Amino acid sequence: MKILFSFLPKQEQQDELIRKFPNAEFVFQKGLNEELLKSSQILVTYGEDLYASHLETAEQLKWIMVASAGLEKMPLQEIANRGIVVTNVRGIHKTPMAETILAHILSIKKSLPLVNENQRNGEWSKRVFPNELLGSTAIILGPGAIGGEVGRILLAFGVHTIGCNSSGRPAPFMEEVVTFDKLNEVLPKADIVISILPSTQQTIRLITYEHLQSMKPTVIFMNFGRGDVVNEEHLLRALEEEQIAYAVLDVFEKEPLTEGHPFWSMNNVIVSPHVSSHSSQYVVRALQIFSRNLNAWLEQKSLENEIDLEKGY
Amino acid sequence: MKILFSFLPKQEQQDELIRKFPNAEFVFQKGLNEELLKSSQILVTYGEDLYASHLETAEQLKWIMVASAGLEKMPLQEIANRGIVVTNVRGIHKTPMAETILAHILSIKKSLPLVNENQRNGEWSKRVFPNELLGSTAIILGPGAIGGEVGRILLAFGVHTIGCNSSGRPAPFMEEVVTFDKLNEVLPKADIVISILPSTQQTIRLITYEHLQSMKPTVIFMNFGRGDVVNEEHLLRALEEEQIAYAVLDVFEKEPLTEGHPFWSMNNVIVSPHVSSHSSQYVVRALQIFSRNLNAWLEQKSLENEIDLEKGY
Repeated sequence: MKILFSFLPKQEQQDELIRKFPNAEFVFQKGLNEELLKSSQILVTYGEDLYASHLETAEQLKWIMVASAGLEKMPLQEIANRGIVVTNVRGIHKTPMAETILAHILSIKKSLPLVNENQRNGEWSKRVFPNELLGSTAIILGPGAIGGEVGRILLAFGVHTIGCNSSGRPAPFMEEVVTFDKLNEVLPKADIVISILPSTQQTIRLITYEHLQSMKPTVIFMNFGRGDVVNEEHLLRALEEEQIAYAVLDVFEKEPLTEGHPFWSMNNVIVSPHVSSHSSQYVVRALQIFSRNLNAWLEQKSLENEIDLEKGY
Repeated sequence: MKILFSFLPKQEQQDELIRKFPNAEFVFQKGLNEELLKSSQILVTYGEDLYASHLETAEQLKWIMVASAGLEKMPLQEIANRGIVVTNVRGIHKTPMAETILAHILSIKKSLPLVNENQRNGEWSKRVFPNELLGSTAIILGPGAIGGEVGRILLAFGVHTIGCNSSGRPAPFMEEVVTFDKLNEVLPKADIVISILPSTQQTIRLITYEHLQSMKPTVIFMNFGRGDVVNEEHLLRALEEEQIAYAVLDVFEKEPLTEGHPFWSMNNVIVSPHVSSHSSQYVVRALQIFSRNLNAWLEQKSLENEIDLEKGY
């Protein structure tokens, strides 16, 4: 059984996989090697290097492990047609992303950008007016593994959590859950609105200008899912009109964010360069999931984080 | 019964007290009125305006309610000699301070100052290397009401908590507690060291240069108690020598921090102008505590947050 990696784990991580799975043939290469793919049963990739054309000759490929959460660059239809299983590392992002989301929320609530600016100016000023998180209400769009972790920590801070998903079914650490079409009714209650939605046909442009208008003027809107959940021109307009107080954006319609885009210089926008999931623990955890799944694969058991290729997540 | 305030709550807050306690005579004045103090039984003050000399003629004074946590500007010995009860608002700071402490920790762990600097420069750079809080170890010097709240939230983030106090007795939300003289042994384990200690004879200069030297070079040292727990020259030296990675300081030996002090311009120091306890909810909560205590006082029950005048806290 040949297992092809299209990225390079550290040497000791490679050695550990070889030691754990002595009967597998591991090939670690940076970049997707098309020739080797033809004879591989398993591909481990970050999910940005596989095209539909590759699949035509990858006749032995049975399982693609994507060491990422976003799958929008994957040729899912062609993969589905060939009956190939796809798994991702859903859950791996939950700790770094929840910590990053909380970092931004608390930084704004406690006026840290102003405290830091005053320090740069050598100015001792107590006029920074910190706010409290306790007693706030947060809406979490996409209360899955990451959203649940955000919810868990928000609850510890005494924040009321409202999840929003397509089914309206209860979700962990959400005190209420509403469906997307009920969003209008809950948005006016929120102090914080956090999107962690993937990009799917159902979520593209889900947040409209009217939604932004219905939010509190003090709201912090955070996008940590995919940039296309909201039309950026509408978001810009809502910020300029002070319909909303802050936007914290880790994702954008076009990445990197265009040079000279107004967001760069707006005081009420935080531009985070799609790093909220970054962590020194990332590859360690991805390989832990892969090892568990490879064991399951060898024992013909069901895999963790298998993707429903029709839904795309 | 005359109750003298030396600060001015909002009109509706004054009205509510008068409504709740119709038999008391409330006098609200900004600044301590010495003449009125002579005939008052209760003084409500922020604790910075009462001198020993005032007490000589304040013959009816039985109870001083300090709407603050620090008592070091109070003439405690003279107050004790006259048998006057002192209460403070211990606990009122726990929510804003715990939130602020977490804001600074997460901001540093997630490299937010660098993310913000890159934004100011219009630079999309993923090279910000965020770290994780999960799995860290924190030492909380002074695990009282505030320290316990910090501990409670750190536990939710998956941080191991070690409290440090004078008795070594267990404290809420501390997974271990050590005495001050065992500090040497635990400091090398810590990723975060947080002092919330008051200024008492026992805590002045408690943290020595040797303590700072024994910490991890990656440690974040945070002082949110009183500035004199550490000799600032020693702290400066440890920072310059990179014995420790960061200092987040809300309190200083001399406040405001002197103009031109090296801390102002150091990249590994956050200067916060003693605002960690500030909150829009402050007076609301102080008056809630005062109302509960005034009820208890009228019913001759024991009071919340009564100060041991010998210990000073």
